[in-house]
Amino acid sequence: MSVLFKNASILMPDMSVLESAYLGVEGDKIDYIGESEPEKKYAETRDYKDKLLIPGLVNAHTHAAMTLLRGVGSDLKLQDWLFNKIFPIEDKLTAEDMRVGGSLAMLEMLRTGTTSFSDMYFFPHMLCEAVGEAGMKANISRAVVAASPDERWEDSFRIRESVELFDGYHNSYDGRIKVDLCVHAEYTNNDSIARRLGELCDEKGAIMHVHVSETRSEHDECITRHGCTPTQWLDKMGCLNGKALLAHGIWLSDEDMELIRAKKLSVVHNPTSNMKLGSGFAPVQKMLDMGIRVGLGTDGTASNNNLDMLEEMHLAAVIHNGYTGDPTIMKPVDIIRMATANGSYAQGRGDTGALAVGMKADIAAIDLDKPHLIPNFDTLALLCYSVQGSDVCMTMVDGKILYENGEYKTLDKEKIYFDVRKSVERLYR
Amino acid sequence: MSVLFKNASILMPDMSVLESAYLGVEGDKIDYIGESEPEKKYAETRDYKDKLLIPGLVNAHTHAAMTLLRGVGSDLKLQDWLFNKIFPIEDKLTAEDMRVGGSLAMLEMLRTGTTSFSDMYFFPHMLCEAVGEAGMKANISRAVVAASPDERWEDSFRIRESVELFDGYHNSYDGRIKVDLCVHAEYTNNDSIARRLGELCDEKGAIMHVHVSETRSEHDECITRHGCTPTQWLDKMGCLNGKALLAHGIWLSDEDMELIRAKKLSVVHNPTSNMKLGSGFAPVQKMLDMGIRVGLGTDGTASNNNLDMLEEMHLAAVIHNGYTGDPTIMKPVDIIRMATANGSYAQGRGDTGALAVGMKADIAAIDLDKPHLIPNFDTLALLCYSVQGSDVCMTMVDGKILYENGEYKTLDKEKIYFDVRKSVERLYR
Repeated sequence: MSVLFKNASILMPDMSVLESAYLGVEGDKIDYIGESEPEKKYAETRDYKDKLLIPGLVNAHTHAAMTLLRGVGSDLKLQDWLFNKIFPIEDKLTAEDMRVGGSLAMLEMLRTGTTSFSDMYFFPHMLCEAVGEAGMKANISRAVVAASPDERWEDSFRIRESVELFDGYHNSYDGRIKVDLCVHAEYTNNDSIARRLGELCDEKGAIMHVHVSETRSEHDECITRHGCTPTQWLDKMGCLNGKALLAHGIWLSDEDMELIRAKKLSVVHNPTSNMKLGSGFAPVQKMLDMGIRVGLGTDGTASNNNLDMLEEMHLAAVIHNGYTGDPTIMKPVDIIRMATANGSYAQGRGDTGALAVGMKADIAAIDLDKPHLIPNFDTLALLCYSVQGSDVCMTMVDGKILYENGEYKTLDKEKIYFDVRKSVERLYR
Repeated sequence: MSVLFKNASILMPDMSVLESAYLGVEGDKIDYIGESEPEKKYAETRDYKDKLLIPGLVNAHTHAAMTLLRGVGSDLKLQDWLFNKIFPIEDKLTAEDMRVGGSLAMLEMLRTGTTSFSDMYFFPHMLCEAVGEAGMKANISRAVVAASPDERWEDSFRIRESVELFDGYHNSYDGRIKVDLCVHAEYTNNDSIARRLGELCDEKGAIMHVHVSETRSEHDECITRHGCTPTQWLDKMGCLNGKALLAHGIWLSDEDMELIRAKKLSVVHNPTSNMKLGSGFAPVQKMLDMGIRVGLGTDGTASNNNLDMLEEMHLAAVIHNGYTGDPTIMKPVDIIRMATANGSYAQGRGDTGALAVGMKADIAAIDLDKPHLIPNFDTLALLCYSVQGSDVCMTMVDGKILYENGEYKTLDKEKIYFDVRKSVERLYR
């Protein structure tokens, strides 16, 4: 579209905030930001007084269609929860469920300012199409596990699906859809599968999306099994030669972090899921201090139970203070970068994650005219400690408004609700 | 009023949920709950399909007027934050600021389902009047500190103000306003002041509201000073003979907890503030297991920075799992009791904190027709892990609707915003 936002507060790439400023969108890009009115005429002008424009939030690790398992088996031990609650339902999930659960996830994500997400799950082509149609962005991967400890990669239908997905959908829908490759985790794979996925990443220039050192037992058992940590094993398997997105990373060793820094890989922090499942506190401030670009994600709704990045930012901002006893760490400036530019980096997108001329117009607007948002002495602190997902009043992707004031422009909420009820009836009967 | 809610989900005192049920309110009380339609006719019937009725939430420890210091000096060390940021502003606070800041706090609390709160701050008579006029409930206390280490209680104007407040306002506004007495903390008081406040609690049957063992240094320095913990010192001073509300309690010893259990005192948990300030993790599950009725509170907005009890419930539900590595603790049933019945107990109110016939009609309604609240397999888990403060669509106190769908019935939002701007200009110029 061609639209000029005026009187807006604008969060700039250097984390300063322009006040009473202008932001122009032409087509799918931002083409003006400034404190004075641009000479150019836009088709439409919107008065954004009392509204804060921020880069669209990037949910850098989730399993969108797990909305259909929201809150299933809360408050159980991890193994009990996975094997007795989650896996039996997941076995029944169909391709149609991916579309339905993914669409429900998008309703929540758009409503809370998320414009792009990195997903790992099943039947990924259905999610590619649902996201493509809805106008959002996503990096989508097929979760690859070894069917048995000695499954050869040549026999893995999951690897075949991954390759088909990449060839069929990578950079589709004007580049909004990207396809990543995925080793689900060290403990669910073997050398043959992992080596092949590493080779495929090299061949195709794909991003590796993988769960790493989420629980202490996973980390320790890998050392027993392989004589090295999950990160080091992935590196040996050739999975970390290009870009990679390592989810959780709670129990990373100092050597792991040094390897991640040297190779410019991404770690994605999932504070709510890490807390709810009792997995622990990731060494996020340490990684940020080393220069690692840590992103932020919600994980799936079975272990969160929301897809609300502003809630995630809030948790990331406070829990590490509590754990270390140091209120000066995890500052708003870092938290906001994690949820925007660092997520964009983890997705291999050079044109999102910041509001600047020439960047794609992926924008969320926060309505600051709320009792819990005044007075405002520090907009960055406000964003991390006070703003809620429900304060988002407009979400734009590639210059198109997809959500505004309770209304969805591309998604049919009632139809999605209807489909969710149908899926749930079948899955849980 | 005389109103019948029909088709509602209703959270019952035993934590079961009635579906498609009826709840009748007559005057200031609940006079019907059931799955069948009551014979009695009400003046008004409201269809509450897709809405969950819960007891009004009790914010059991806050400093409401600190809304005027929202987010001031975030991310500093505690002593730096207090002495260089908070105290200099607090020195300038006037009685009018208490009315203004307290009213802003009520806008946020009513909007997020809170019907009653326990407050400790300055110029408390202004808050009593503001809360009384607005129709909310509160237990209000004057924070008493010793002006100097050797100040005698006879010279303390703060004690005089506390007594005047109690005599003037306790049980005023139809019992909605209660007055507590307050020893701010061990480290800000002396024996003379604390003993006198203990005597006054005994004389007047007042509740003692006090900060206890919030930081490790506070706890340890008390032991150095007095040879006993803050809880034990308060007990020696005669402050814990009747009912008492101990805020934070992060570093309570096993002996402290046993004393608290034996005396049936209340501890109030403040998870966001404890995390943000880096104070630590209170032993909440241990206290609940011992039978201590732990309440829940937001603390002030300078260290939160919200007054949203649903956010507080979420943090309480997840952070202890993360800290202990045990996902089975801090179950929704406990969290909800903390935010309702246990808070009511801490306030010495026998007629709030649960939805039952004969109880005061203090009710919050949650709109469940939201993308992040479906599917719903477990309403209690949904309430703790997915519901947001913004999902509250109606808040009723003593049978009167004070907030509904964005509209306040007794508070003038624009007038309060105007007054907040005036206060802020004066305080920060």
